[in-house]
Amino acid sequence: MNTILLDKLNGISTSRPPIWLMRQAGRVLPEYRKVRASAKDFKSFVKNPDLASEVTVQPVDILGVDAAIVFSDILVIPEAMGLDYEMIEAKGPSFPKVIESIGDIQSLVCERDIIQERLDYVYQAITQSKTKLNDRVPLIGFAGAPWTIMAYMIEGQGSKTFSKAKKWLYKDSKAAHLLLQKITDATIHYLEGQIAAGAQIIQLFDSWAGVLDARMYREFCIPYLEQIERTLTVPSIIFAKDAWFALEDLATTSFDAVGLDWGISAEYAHSKLGSSKVTQGNADPCFLYADEKYIQDRTREMLREFGTNHIANLGHGLYPDTPLDGVKAYIAAVKAYQYEV
Amino acid sequence: MNTILLDKLNGISTSRPPIWLMRQAGRVLPEYRKVRASAKDFKSFVKNPDLASEVTVQPVDILGVDAAIVFSDILVIPEAMGLDYEMIEAKGPSFPKVIESIGDIQSLVCERDIIQERLDYVYQAITQSKTKLNDRVPLIGFAGAPWTIMAYMIEGQGSKTFSKAKKWLYKDSKAAHLLLQKITDATIHYLEGQIAAGAQIIQLFDSWAGVLDARMYREFCIPYLEQIERTLTVPSIIFAKDAWFALEDLATTSFDAVGLDWGISAEYAHSKLGSSKVTQGNADPCFLYADEKYIQDRTREMLREFGTNHIANLGHGLYPDTPLDGVKAYIAAVKAYQYEV
Repeated sequence: MNTILLDKLNGISTSRPPIWLMRQAGRVLPEYRKVRASAKDFKSFVKNPDLASEVTVQPVDILGVDAAIVFSDILVIPEAMGLDYEMIEAKGPSFPKVIESIGDIQSLVCERDIIQERLDYVYQAITQSKTKLNDRVPLIGFAGAPWTIMAYMIEGQGSKTFSKAKKWLYKDSKAAHLLLQKITDATIHYLEGQIAAGAQIIQLFDSWAGVLDARMYREFCIPYLEQIERTLTVPSIIFAKDAWFALEDLATTSFDAVGLDWGISAEYAHSKLGSSKVTQGNADPCFLYADEKYIQDRTREMLREFGTNHIANLGHGLYPDTPLDGVKAYIAAVKAYQYEV
Repeated sequence: MNTILLDKLNGISTSRPPIWLMRQAGRVLPEYRKVRASAKDFKSFVKNPDLASEVTVQPVDILGVDAAIVFSDILVIPEAMGLDYEMIEAKGPSFPKVIESIGDIQSLVCERDIIQERLDYVYQAITQSKTKLNDRVPLIGFAGAPWTIMAYMIEGQGSKTFSKAKKWLYKDSKAAHLLLQKITDATIHYLEGQIAAGAQIIQLFDSWAGVLDARMYREFCIPYLEQIERTLTVPSIIFAKDAWFALEDLATTSFDAVGLDWGISAEYAHSKLGSSKVTQGNADPCFLYADEKYIQDRTREMLREFGTNHIANLGHGLYPDTPLDGVKAYIAAVKAYQYEV
């Protein structure tokens, strides 16, 4: 097996940085779009382990990345807890019913057996992906971070400000903590099942971290992230997008690596995380619109700046219109890079 | 006249921090909503100097803020340059035609006489506001920063990623610079007219600064911001939202004050800007959902942290559902605060 990503997370030296890309199993690949077209809608796609495992493995075959990440969605957790959602094409998720009261929070399910039973289709997708990968590269499992899941449960959709969700933090912090704890419990059970099914690395996505600030992140996010991490028996990565203000707090958690968005320079990351913490990222997905020469030069510069404790990735998921040539040029530039000895 | 804001910007000592709020002339006030309802739509509201000046002055009368800011929109500049837009209720701006080619950029108007003639309605709103203010507090004029205006001109609406606009920066930086220069020229002419009409302070809003990074901001934003600032004959404020990575570069510009979003701590701001640069901000608008005691305590803490070179404001505009009681509690807490001597 290509163990370069696991080695990096385990502190074993490698000759070059590992690379995988957020949303590598996605619209950027024509092969993905073909499989996607065969499913009725996004949710039946996610819930079909045959199709989900097929697109999980595609980027390994087609792009030669150093890891696969199971094709799924962070919103399977609210659904398993009792809050159904719809995925509306070219618009995003939408929840017909949202959390509006303490009663709504109390009625959410977070029992181990129910969560694991309801999310069995994810475990099947993991098992099938493992078979198809046949030990070529490790498989990453994932979940949304509690704050990001809470934000969706209250807003019912994406938002520029997430002011409805944030209102709870300012007005009723006790209820907010209750909700965050229930999401945390459900997530712990969910990830236990992912690891049992074969996930070899876990990444948490805190997509809406950036609407908070250091104080709020310290109170409402860090403790729950750490609770989850401590139950994981495989290497872990936390990606808190736009949470530049929280890096010092994230450095104190037990996550093996910290994902970085493109706003964060290597110098800033090292000053806040220390040089021994593994970083992951952080090229701007838009840099893949540039020509090959630009991508090569910028990649080398980025890898030099981040040094040896770094996993090459992007600062956000691939955009649907990212040119495949740019993606391939980035991966090739990382694979051609050798650490100076 | 209450000169506390002008004094702060001019380096003259004051006994307390000045306060005004972004979007203080807005839906948070029932009196605003009443005037707004009398206009056919948002754009005819902006273009009606009687109505625009009426809502400009409302927050001075009702909330007792230390400055008025002329009621207008940053998108009047693309329109004056030849790109019309519509404002769609509860959705935001939408441009029927967007910039797609060099030819589109070349056909944009930025001549002084045309820009000033087309934006005469803003100058009339300023003149009428000055009459209604009767020298009680200073009047702030404003414009969008060139990058933010460029982003709208290319995307045609708000965006989570602004990837279409950013694609120009990566793929055709020469065309991007041409567009930014034309917007800069038009903005300089526009602001010259605002100052001639009576604006006593100018704020630039770089609302989409946060999708860039330090390198991109240095190349595509700072030079144009500085070109504009150097033509201003009144004190100036730059608010680059979410551009925590650009504070060191903003510190090198001639702006008299730097607006900060709520993610930025006083400690971080001082470390990047130096303690002599005036800061403005930066309470989270969501903190106004909290109870009076919380608002009072947090306000005092914030003002203590930011010190004497600070203008109290928010880290973003007021949200339409912000409780008026919270707004009043914040203003009262700032006005009750006295610097330690």
